[in-house]
Amino acid sequence: MNEYPQPLLRLISALQVFPGIGNKTAERMALFLLRQSPEVAEELAAAAGAAKKAIRNCSICHNLTESNTCSVCQDDSRDKSLVMVVEGPRDLLAFERAGVWRGVYHCLMGRISPVEGITERELTIPHLRKRAASGGVTEIVIATNPDMGGDATAMAVARALSGSGVAVSRLARGVPAGHQLDLLAGQILEESLVNRQPLSGPVASGTQAQAKGAGARK
Amino acid sequence: MNEYPQPLLRLISALQVFPGIGNKTAERMALFLLRQSPEVAEELAAAAGAAKKAIRNCSICHNLTESNTCSVCQDDSRDKSLVMVVEGPRDLLAFERAGVWRGVYHCLMGRISPVEGITERELTIPHLRKRAASGGVTEIVIATNPDMGGDATAMAVARALSGSGVAVSRLARGVPAGHQLDLLAGQILEESLVNRQPLSGPVASGTQAQAKGAGARK
Repeated sequence: MNEYPQPLLRLISALQVFPGIGNKTAERMALFLLRQSPEVAEELAAAAGAAKKAIRNCSICHNLTESNTCSVCQDDSRDKSLVMVVEGPRDLLAFERAGVWRGVYHCLMGRISPVEGITERELTIPHLRKRAASGGVTEIVIATNPDMGGDATAMAVARALSGSGVAVSRLARGVPAGHQLDLLAGQILEESLVNRQPLSGPVASGTQAQAKGAGARK
Repeated sequence: MNEYPQPLLRLISALQVFPGIGNKTAERMALFLLRQSPEVAEELAAAAGAAKKAIRNCSICHNLTESNTCSVCQDDSRDKSLVMVVEGPRDLLAFERAGVWRGVYHCLMGRISPVEGITERELTIPHLRKRAASGGVTEIVIATNPDMGGDATAMAVARALSGSGVAVSRLARGVPAGHQLDLLAGQILEESLVNRQPLSGPVASGTQAQAKGAGARK
């Protein structure tokens, strides 16, 4: 016996499609599933099929929905002139759960990643440009993740929107509320210094953009 | 929108049944699945159902099989008088892949774990005792994992087999071949010293069991 029974091997390789699930983890998951009652496997099978069948992308913002448009785009109390650009539904849901955004969204459905071969074309940036050009949108807030891939994606979005006549902004960068300064990475502290907000009187340099190298240590 | 669409929530919770798959990982997996072609979800569903239906436990050793008995127990070239006791099919397969065991196996289908409420009764120890009593078995090698849970399980197995008239042994403990001594944990080095194998002349104490405290530093 050099291998598991064939149906088990099939399940292991089906589980391995997920990112971050390697051979060993898939093996552990499959063996676990075999130890459970049949209902557990049946529910997984049914749930996977049903989710894939029932859920599609909102025709306006690409958020996940069971209808043609998502519940945010359908909500008349939301300000449709304000569009927040997020990488995907997880980030959208984070803002929704926090309850801090009264506008609508645009899901890029990914981020630029040369390693994975994901360029602007794989994202929904062309659609965003159309939304911006169609009128009614006054400001677009770019809310990609504050890391290298997110920054590259934000730059691509900003470039695509230049000349659209719509105001474009991005999330503030600085120290995260509720954290301890002594436990934060140097880059965070540096950005919080470069982007420091004047309370009274002039700061060491004229604009926030120029602050780097002036008041900031490097 | 405070939550994902219901079919997605259902899939997330179906994925969370796996050990080590928390809410965040299940969420990531479910969102990934939605981005794939329908065939990916269909294959996962089909594979899970088929594996659970087709695979059962060998009636002799509890290994996974599509028949009544597993391929090892069916193999006439295996020495049925030698039984290796493993925690489960993964360990069995590790020995099979290494090709180092010519006997057969007995899968305990778990290990003693007071935290998870798993006692001897949840394991196949009573069945192992019956196998030992039925005659034809001359030696049982306990091959539980070399850690606390594995040692507790090994002790329970040895206790259950005492008086059966069958020789009982366990895997040697020591330094693992191909590793660097300076990277090994202290406990490994200690066990390799306590269990040191005489090459010529008497070692510092009469038996291996007494070596602890004699030749060994503590």
